Amino acid sequence: MTLNEVTISRAILEEQHQTFLDYLEMDVAVVGGGPSGLACATLLAEKGIKCALIEKKLSIGGGMWGGGMMFPRIVVQEEARRLLDRFGITYREFEPGYYVTKSVETVAKLTAAACDAGVEFFNLITVEDVMIHGDGRVGGLVINWTPVDISGLHVDPLTVACTCTVDATGHDAMVARMIERKGGSLQVKGESFMWAERAESQILNHTREVFPGLFVTGMAANAVAGECRMGPIFGGMLLSGERAAELVAERLGR
Amino acid sequence: MTLNEVTISRAILEEQHQTFLDYLEMDVAVVGGGPSGLACATLLAEKGIKCALIEKKLSIGGGMWGGGMMFPRIVVQEEARRLLDRFGITYREFEPGYYVTKSVETVAKLTAAACDAGVEFFNLITVEDVMIHGDGRVGGLVINWTPVDISGLHVDPLTVACTCTVDATGHDAMVARMIERKGGSLQVKGESFMWAERAESQILNHTREVFPGLFVTGMAANAVAGECRMGPIFGGMLLSGERAAELVAERLGR
Amino acid sequence: MTLNEVTISRAILEEQHQTFLDYLEMDVAVVGGGPSGLACATLLAEKGIKCALIEKKLSIGGGMWGGGMMFPRIVVQEEARRLLDRFGITYREFEPGYYVTKSVETVAKLTAAACDAGVEFFNLITVEDVMIHGDGRVGGLVINWTPVDISGLHVDPLTVACTCTVDATGHDAMVARMIERKGGSLQVKGESFMWAERAESQILNHTREVFPGLFVTGMAANAVAGECRMGPIFGGMLLSGERAAELVAERLGR
Amino acid sequence: MTLNEVTISRAILEEQHQTFLDYLEMDVAVVGGGPSGLACATLLAEKGIKCALIEKKLSIGGGMWGGGMMFPRIVVQEEARRLLDRFGITYREFEPGYYVTKSVETVAKLTAAACDAGVEFFNLITVEDVMIHGDGRVGGLVINWTPVDISGLHVDPLTVACTCTVDATGHDAMVARMIERKGGSLQVKGESFMWAERAESQILNHTREVFPGLFVTGMAANAVAGECRMGPIFGGMLLSGERAAELVAERLGR
Amino acid sequence: MTLNEVTISRAILEEQHQTFLDYLEMDVAVVGGGPSGLACATLLAEKGIKCALIEKKLSIGGGMWGGGMMFPRIVVQEEARRLLDRFGITYREFEPGYYVTKSVETVAKLTAAACDAGVEFFNLITVEDVMIHGDGRVGGLVINWTPVDISGLHVDPLTVACTCTVDATGHDAMVARMIERKGGSLQVKGESFMWAERAESQILNHTREVFPGLFVTGMAANAVAGECRMGPIFGGMLLSGERAAELVAERLGR
Amino acid sequence: MTLNEVTISRAILEEQHQTFLDYLEMDVAVVGGGPSGLACATLLAEKGIKCALIEKKLSIGGGMWGGGMMFPRIVVQEEARRLLDRFGITYREFEPGYYVTKSVETVAKLTAAACDAGVEFFNLITVEDVMIHGDGRVGGLVINWTPVDISGLHVDPLTVACTCTVDATGHDAMVARMIERKGGSLQVKGESFMWAERAESQILNHTREVFPGLFVTGMAANAVAGECRMGPIFGGMLLSGERAAELVAERLGR
Amino acid sequence: MTLNEVTISRAILEEQHQTFLDYLEMDVAVVGGGPSGLACATLLAEKGIKCALIEKKLSIGGGMWGGGMMFPRIVVQEEARRLLDRFGITYREFEPGYYVTKSVETVAKLTAAACDAGVEFFNLITVEDVMIHGDGRVGGLVINWTPVDISGLHVDPLTVACTCTVDATGHDAMVARMIERKGGSLQVKGESFMWAERAESQILNHTREVFPGLFVTGMAANAVAGECRMGPIFGGMLLSGERAAELVAERLGR
Amino acid sequence: MTLNEVTISRAILEEQHQTFLDYLEMDVAVVGGGPSGLACATLLAEKGIKCALIEKKLSIGGGMWGGGMMFPRIVVQEEARRLLDRFGITYREFEPGYYVTKSVETVAKLTAAACDAGVEFFNLITVEDVMIHGDGRVGGLVINWTPVDISGLHVDPLTVACTCTVDATGHDAMVARMIERKGGSLQVKGESFMWAERAESQILNHTREVFPGLFVTGMAANAVAGECRMGPIFGGMLLSGERAAELVAERLGR
Repeated sequence: MTLNEVTISRAILEEQHQTFLDYLEMDVAVVGGGPSGLACATLLAEKGIKCALIEKKLSIGGGMWGGGMMFPRIVVQEEARRLLDRFGITYREFEPGYYVTKSVETVAKLTAAACDAGVEFFNLITVEDVMIHGDGRVGGLVINWTPVDISGLHVDPLTVACTCTVDATGHDAMVARMIERKGGSLQVKGESFMWAERAESQILNHTREVFPGLFVTGMAANAVAGECRMGPIFGGMLLSGERAAELVAERLGR
Repeated sequence: MTLNEVTISRAILEEQHQTFLDYLEMDVAVVGGGPSGLACATLLAEKGIKCALIEKKLSIGGGMWGGGMMFPRIVVQEEARRLLDRFGITYREFEPGYYVTKSVETVAKLTAAACDAGVEFFNLITVEDVMIHGDGRVGGLVINWTPVDISGLHVDPLTVACTCTVDATGHDAMVARMIERKGGSLQVKGESFMWAERAESQILNHTREVFPGLFVTGMAANAVAGECRMGPIFGGMLLSGERAAELVAERLGR
Repeated sequence: MTLNEVTISRAILEEQHQTFLDYLEMDVAVVGGGPSGLACATLLAEKGIKCALIEKKLSIGGGMWGGGMMFPRIVVQEEARRLLDRFGITYREFEPGYYVTKSVETVAKLTAAACDAGVEFFNLITVEDVMIHGDGRVGGLVINWTPVDISGLHVDPLTVACTCTVDATGHDAMVARMIERKGGSLQVKGESFMWAERAESQILNHTREVFPGLFVTGMAANAVAGECRMGPIFGGMLLSGERAAELVAERLGR
Repeated sequence: MTLNEVTISRAILEEQHQTFLDYLEMDVAVVGGGPSGLACATLLAEKGIKCALIEKKLSIGGGMWGGGMMFPRIVVQEEARRLLDRFGITYREFEPGYYVTKSVETVAKLTAAACDAGVEFFNLITVEDVMIHGDGRVGGLVINWTPVDISGLHVDPLTVACTCTVDATGHDAMVARMIERKGGSLQVKGESFMWAERAESQILNHTREVFPGLFVTGMAANAVAGECRMGPIFGGMLLSGERAAELVAERLGR
Repeated sequence: MTLNEVTISRAILEEQHQTFLDYLEMDVAVVGGGPSGLACATLLAEKGIKCALIEKKLSIGGGMWGGGMMFPRIVVQEEARRLLDRFGITYREFEPGYYVTKSVETVAKLTAAACDAGVEFFNLITVEDVMIHGDGRVGGLVINWTPVDISGLHVDPLTVACTCTVDATGHDAMVARMIERKGGSLQVKGESFMWAERAESQILNHTREVFPGLFVTGMAANAVAGECRMGPIFGGMLLSGERAAELVAERLGR
Repeated sequence: MTLNEVTISRAILEEQHQTFLDYLEMDVAVVGGGPSGLACATLLAEKGIKCALIEKKLSIGGGMWGGGMMFPRIVVQEEARRLLDRFGITYREFEPGYYVTKSVETVAKLTAAACDAGVEFFNLITVEDVMIHGDGRVGGLVINWTPVDISGLHVDPLTVACTCTVDATGHDAMVARMIERKGGSLQVKGESFMWAERAESQILNHTREVFPGLFVTGMAANAVAGECRMGPIFGGMLLSGERAAELVAERLGR
Repeated sequence: MTLNEVTISRAILEEQHQTFLDYLEMDVAVVGGGPSGLACATLLAEKGIKCALIEKKLSIGGGMWGGGMMFPRIVVQEEARRLLDRFGITYREFEPGYYVTKSVETVAKLTAAACDAGVEFFNLITVEDVMIHGDGRVGGLVINWTPVDISGLHVDPLTVACTCTVDATGHDAMVARMIERKGGSLQVKGESFMWAERAESQILNHTREVFPGLFVTGMAANAVAGECRMGPIFGGMLLSGERAAELVAERLGR
Repeated sequence: MTLNEVTISRAILEEQHQTFLDYLEMDVAVVGGGPSGLACATLLAEKGIKCALIEKKLSIGGGMWGGGMMFPRIVVQEEARRLLDRFGITYREFEPGYYVTKSVETVAKLTAAACDAGVEFFNLITVEDVMIHGDGRVGGLVINWTPVDISGLHVDPLTVACTCTVDATGHDAMVARMIERKGGSLQVKGESFMWAERAESQILNHTREVFPGLFVTGMAANAVAGECRMGPIFGGMLLSGERAAELVAERLGR
C-alpha cells in the first residue's frame, strides 16, 4: 500500500469536520481542561450525556502539568482518593491523609478517562462570548481559534449551542466574568487569600448554577464566591468536578 | 484531618527532590516528548531500563496536540496499527490502510502508557549542552529550567549523567545539532521536501546511533539523514520510537 | 423566518469544508495575491482550469493597496492598458503612455474578476514547504494557518496536491527560495537595483518554469533571475501574470 | 516609449494630492470599510453625494475577509438578498432563507461597487479626534497616518471637514466613543450577548444620528445602543448601511 | 581527586533542598532585598531569630546598585552613620552631616553582614499571595519562581509559613497592596511628593505593624502612610530596617 | 541638621565625577564582574595597582547569584578552598574535596573584598569597542551606558585608557570577540562540550595574554581556547582570576 | 598637535559636570522642548533669568519636526508673525493671515535662539516627580535618565531645585498630572474636541500659574483647562510661551 | 480674521507637495543628517546647487544630540574651529587645541545654517534602494516613509532622481552597503578599532567618490575604507562634509 499526502489530509479534514458539525449542538460544554473540568466532563459523558471540553491552549491539563513551582508533583487528600483510584492514577502516601501523584501521570490518566468516556475535545479554541436569547439562559458559546486571538487579526467567531455550560476556567472564572462584564446579574467576587483547608471545605458549596444555564466548578467556583484560595492540592477540584457533573445531569433530567 | 499548606509544600518538594537525585544518573535520557520519544521511552522502561523523558515545554505530546492545521485528528497507517492497539488508542478506518485517531486521546494514552511503564518525566527542562568526556561518548546532558531560558536570565545549569541519549526533538534535531555546532563529527543534513511515503519507508533505516551514545528517532532521525519530510501521519514516528528502543536496549545489553 | 446561530455556523462550515476537500487536488496553485498572481489565476480559471490562489495575509491584493508611499495610486504603462480595460479598471492618462488608477479600485476589480472566473481563494494560509516525489516535480504544497505561524505554536500542516505551482510571492520569491534552501537545483539570484524600464522589459523573459512544476511571475520572476527592480508601475506585473497563465495552460495541454 | 521612475512618482503624487485637497471638504465621511460602511458609502455616492471612506487598515473589507473562524464564507438572510444581487455578489442557498457567499468575493464586489459609484478611499488613515465648533455638530475629523500611530512617533494630524460623519467602525464604535470620552452627550452602552435574530431585527432601529452630525451603522449602531451581538451573518450590516445612507441623504436634503 | 559533574549537581540540590524544607516554616519572612530589608533581616538574625529574605530579582540590593541616576554613590546622614560603621561600610564626609558611600560596597557589605548573621536568602522568588487563616493574621506567603512569572506560564505556587512578615518591597509596598486588593482592612495611600527631610523624619513613625502579622519598613512604610518621598539618601531606610527588627523581635518575644 | 535634596544630589555627582575623571586613565580594566573578574581585580588592587571593574549589568556577580538551576548554591573544589578562606566565604564539605557555599554570600564577600582592596566599580557600563593605536596594543576601552544600548538610542560613547585589559566576560569572551570581529589576529574558538574536570584542569593554561594588552580569565579563557565547558563549580574561576592577576602584575612590573 | 581620546572624554565630562552642578539650583525649569517651551525659555533667558529646558527625548523640538501628517510644514497666523521675525524664521504667506514655515527650520531657529539667549538644555532627562516642601510650592523636580526609564531598570533619581517650573509637555500636561495624581489641589480636565480658532483664542487665558510654583503653557495650558484642541497651527503656542515667560518673570520680580 | 482648520491643512499639503514634486529631480541627495551630512549639504546649497537632505529619523542631528554618554557636549579640534565660527557655534577652549561646544546648540546652528543656505529637508524618509540605469551610475534613490518601515506594512516606495548622492549615514554606511549587497563593485570594509587621531587624520583621504555617483563622508567614509574609529570629536566630520561638498561641486562643474 502506498501513502498519499492528500488522502491523509482528507482523512483529517473529514473526520474532524463531521465531529465539529455534530457538536454545533450539544448537551454540555465544559470550558477549561484542568482537573475539575476533566472530572466533570468525564462523569457527564459516562452518563451518556453529549459533552465537549473546550480548551484555549494547545494541550489539555491546565495548571496541573507544572505541579508546585515546577516540581511536577500534586497532592490529593483522603476524601478524593477514591477518584484517583477511579481514574487509575497511582499515588504514594506522604503522611496520613496526604497522597502524592505525579503531575504528568495525573493529566494523562484524567484525559484518557475523558476520552474513553466519550468526551469530545476542542483545543486551541477560545470562548469569546456567550449566546443568551429571550429566555435569559446561557444557550451557547461564541468561539474562535486561539491563534487568531493571539495574532490580533480581525476574524469573526462562530457559535455552538449547548443546554448547559460549565465554567471550569480556574480563578479567572472567564465565562462568569463575561456575563458580569456585559451586565448579566452575576457578580464574580474574586478569590480571597490562601487558606487551603477552608477553600477545600467550601468548594462543594460553591459548585452550583450561578446564572441560568451556567455552572461553576473548581477554582472558578471559589472565585465567583469570593472564597479563599487553594494551594497545590487537587482533591477539592476533582470533587467539585464530580459535584458539577451531578448538578448538570440533574438539570438535564438524567 | 486538617489540611496544612506547609505539609502540601513539603510533600511536593520531598517527593520530587528524591526523584531528581535518583535520576542524576540513569540509563537513558530521551529528549523530546512527541510520539517517537514517548514510544521509545515506554518500551525501554517496560524492559526495566531506567529512563527519563526530558521535555522543554510544560506539557508532554509535542506536535500531536494540534493534529493537522488545528483539526485534532492524526492518521496512522496499517504497519503501525498494532502500536495503537498496544497503547489502547481507539481509531476509525478511513480508507483501507488509513486509521484516524483523535489527537488528544493519542497523547493521553501514549503518556499514560509511559507512566505505567515507569518512565520518569522532567518537563519544563531545556537541554543546553551535552557532557562528553575523554571516551568521546555523550555521557550526560546539561539542563536548565525552560523559564530561565525564556526570561533571558543568567543562571547556570546542572548536569545529569546517562549511558545513552535519544534525540527525539523533531525536525530540529536539537541534540544532534549541538554536537555538530561544537565540532563533533556529526552532520545534520536537514529535512528535505515533503514526500510522506518515502519518509515513512526510510525512517527506520535512519533511526540509529549517529554519534557515540546518541541515538536519533522520529523526525530527528530523518532530519539528520537529510531524508524527506513526513506529513501528519504518525505510524513511522511510533515505529521509529520502537526501533530506537530496540537499538538502545541492545547497546545496554538488555 | 427566524435566524439561528447554529444554522449560520453550519452553513459556513459545510460550504467551506466542501471547497477545501475539493481543492485538496487541483490543477494550479497560485501562491500570492498581488497583481501578477491575480491576473494569472484569473486567466487560468477563465480557461476552465481548476485554480486556487493561496494568500498568507487576511486580505487579497498584496502591495497594491498602499500605492506608492501610501499615496493610493498605481501607474500602468501603455502596453498593459488593455488589461485594465479587460478587468474594468478605470484610469486617467497622466502623460502619454502613463495611466493612473486608484489602488483600491485596482485590487477590488482584479479580485472580483478572479472570483467571476472561478478562482478559489485560500486566505490566511501560509505555504510552509513543497511536496516533491520521485519524479522530481513540485507536486503539491504543505500549508498551515497563518495565525498558527504568527503565534509560534507547534501545529502540523496539511498537504494539497497541484499539477503546477505559480510563485507570485513578490521579491521574496518564497516558494523558489524554499526549494533553493532545501537543496533543489534552483538559484534565486535576488532583485538588483531599481531600473524600472529594464525590469519591465525583461519580466516576460523571466516569467517561466524555473523548476519542474514551478513557474514564477511578477517580482518573483525578476528576483529569481537577478533582474532589476521595478518601481510602482504595474503593467509588467499584469503582463507577467498573463504570460505565466499562458505557459501553465500550455504545460497542462489546455 | 521609455519608462521613467520620476514620471511614475510624479503621476502618483499629483493625482493623489489633487484628490486629497479636493476632499479636505466633503459631504460625508464614512469611517470604517466593513460591510455597512461600504454599503452606506456606495449608496450615498450613487446619489451624487461627495463621500469618502476612511479606513485605518491597509486593506478595505474589515472583518469580512476571514468569514467565520477563518472559513471564508459569509451568510446573508433573505431580507438582504436583493443587496447581494444589486452588488453582483454570487451566492448559494444553504437552507431556505440562508444564502452563503464567499467572503473574498463579497469584499471585492462591494468595494468595486463603491469605486464605480464614486466613493473616494483613504486607507491607512486613522481618525484621532473629531472637530466640533460652536454649533455643537461633528463638523470634521482629525486624521493621521496609521503607521505613525503604530510607530509611536510624535507627529501632528491634519483636519478634514465633512457635513456628516458615519461611524461604521464595528463594535468598537470608535468615533462615538471619542465623543463620549471627551464629554460629549453620547453614551456608548456596548454590545450585549450574542443573539443574532434580535440583533438583526433591531439594527435598523439603532441606525440613526446619535449626536449632531454623527450617524452610526452596522455593529457600531448596536454597540451604541447596547443591543445584542450579531453572528457572522451580514444581511443586517448591509441593510443598516443602506438605512444610514438614506438618513444621511435626507439630512443633506438629497 | 577527580571532579564529577553529577556530584556537583547532587551537592547543589541536596544542600539547597535541605534549606528549603527547613524554611517552609520560619519566624520571619522579609520580602525585598533593599537597604531596609537587609538591615531588618540582619538584625533579626543576629538575635537568633530564624529569618529568610525573599527577593524577586536574581541579585540582592534593590535600588542601591545604581546610586542616583546611575552615578553609583549613596548619601547617608549623621543619624545613621553608626549603622555604616556597624556594617563596615566605608564613607567620606561630603559636608557636615552628609556621608557618601559607594553603592556597590554598600550592597556587598550589607549582604555579607546578613549572611554572617544567618539570614537565609531566597532570590528569584516572587510572592504571589499571602496565607491568612481564621485568626486573620498573615501566617505565610504564597511563592513562585520569578522566571515562571516572567514567562507567563501556568504553574502553581507553593506556600511557606512565617510568624511575621516584613514588607520591604519599596514604594510599591507589594505585600500590603495584595492585602488591600483582596479586601483586607489596610489602605495603601501611596507615596506623596519628594520632601527628603520630612520623609526621613517620619519613616520611623510609619515603620509598624500595619495588618496583623505584617510589618512595613523603608519606602513601603512611607508608601502605606501616604508619606513624602525620599531622595537617594539611605539613612532612614537603614534606621527603619532597624526599627522594624525591634518591633518584630518584640512581637516574637525575643 | 536639615536634609537638603540638592546637597544630596551634589554629593553624589561630585564624588562620582571625581572618580570617573580619575579612572579615565588606569592600570587595569577588568571587564565582567563574575568570580574570575572579581578575584582578579581584588588581587591586583591589593598590590596597589589602579584597577577598575566594568560590569554591564546593574549588579555585580554575574552568573553566581543563581547557583545551579536557581538553587543558590555553588560548589568549589579542594584546590580553591584557600581562596574561600581568603575572602571569608563560609562553606560546608559535601564530600571529600567538594565544598558548598551559598551563592549570595559568595557574591557579597567577593565584592566586599574587592571594595576593601580598592577596586573601583563601574556598573551599568557596556564596552562597545577597544582602542588600539599604532603600537597594536589594546590601550583602552570605548564605553557607554548600558541603558542607552538597551534603548537603541543613538548616543556616542566615551573612551578610557588602560595599560592592561582583562576579559572576564564569561563564555561570550566579548572583548576577545570584538577584536576578532574587527580583524585583529585573535581567534575565539568557542567553548566545547561539558567536561568539568578537564575544563578545570586546563583553565590556568588558557589564562594568558591572548592579544597585546588583553588577558583572558575564567570561562572567557576557556572559550578563546576552545576548551571544554565547566559546570557550576567555581574553583577554577577563582584560581584563573588569581593567575590573571599574577600575569597582569608581572606585565606591569609590579 | 595630537588628539587624545582621554582628553576628549575629560573635556566632555568636566564641562557638563560643571553645568549640571551649576543647575542643581536655578530660577526656572521649563519641562518640554516644543514650541511653547522653547519660546518661554528663550524669553526668560533673555531677561537674564537662569533657566533650563528639560526634555525627555534625545532631540529638542517635540511635535514640530513632523509638521502635519509628516508633511514638514507648519502654519502660523498673523498675530504670531512677529515672533517668527524675532527668531529669524522664514515663511511664505499662503493666504492672508496664514504663514507657512518649514518645520525643520522652525525647530532649528527656535533652538538656536534659546542657546544664544543662554538657556541650558538637559535632554534625555525624564521628570519623575516634583519636590514640594512645607510651603506647598513646587520647589524642584525629581529627574532621571530617559534610557533608564525605557529599560525598566531600578535606578534612583536625583533632584534639582527651581523657583518656578513651567509645564510645556503638550497635551499630556505631565507635570500637572503628577500633582493631580498625588493629591495636589489641581485638576487636569483634558483637551476637548478640535476647534482651532477657539483654542488659539483662549490659550493665553489658560496660560497661568495653576499650582503654587507651576505654570502651564502651550497645549498643556489648554489640557489643564479642558479647552479645545489646536490644529497644526503654532501661533498660539509661541504666544503662550511668551505669556508664560512674562508671568514667570513677574513672579520672580524681574 | 478667523482660523480655519481646513485652510491650515491645505496650506501644509500644498506647500509640501510643491516641494516634493520639485525635488523629484535634484542635483544632490545627501543621506543622513549628522554633522558631515549637514556641513556638506549646507556648503553645496551655498553654491546654488539644488540639494536635499534625507533623514530617516523624525529629527535632524544624528548622533550629535547626546554628546558623549549622554553628557551633551561635543569636542572639536583646532583644524575645524573655523567651521564652528562659520556656523556661529559658540565654544570654550578646554585645553589648547580642544574646543568644547554644547551638543544641542551645535545641532541647531548647523541645521539653521543649512536652512538658510537653501537645503531642503526630507525627514522621516528611509532610503530603501538605489536607482542605477545602464550608465552604471547611482542616478536616484528609492524612498519610503520611515513609519511604514517600522510598522512592517507592505507599501511600495517612490523614486527620486539625483545627479550625485552623498552617503552620510555614519558607520553603517547604509547606501554603500546596499550597493555592496546587491553586487555592485564596492566593498565596505567596516570601521576598525578606536584611534581618534589616525581616524581624524585620514578621513579627508577617505572622503571620495566610491562608486559612480556615490560619495561618502564622515564616519561612512571611514567605514567604507576600513579606517579606525573616531571618538566624540567632530572636527573631522565637519571637515569631511566640507571636502565632500567640494568634490561633488567639482563633479557637477560648479
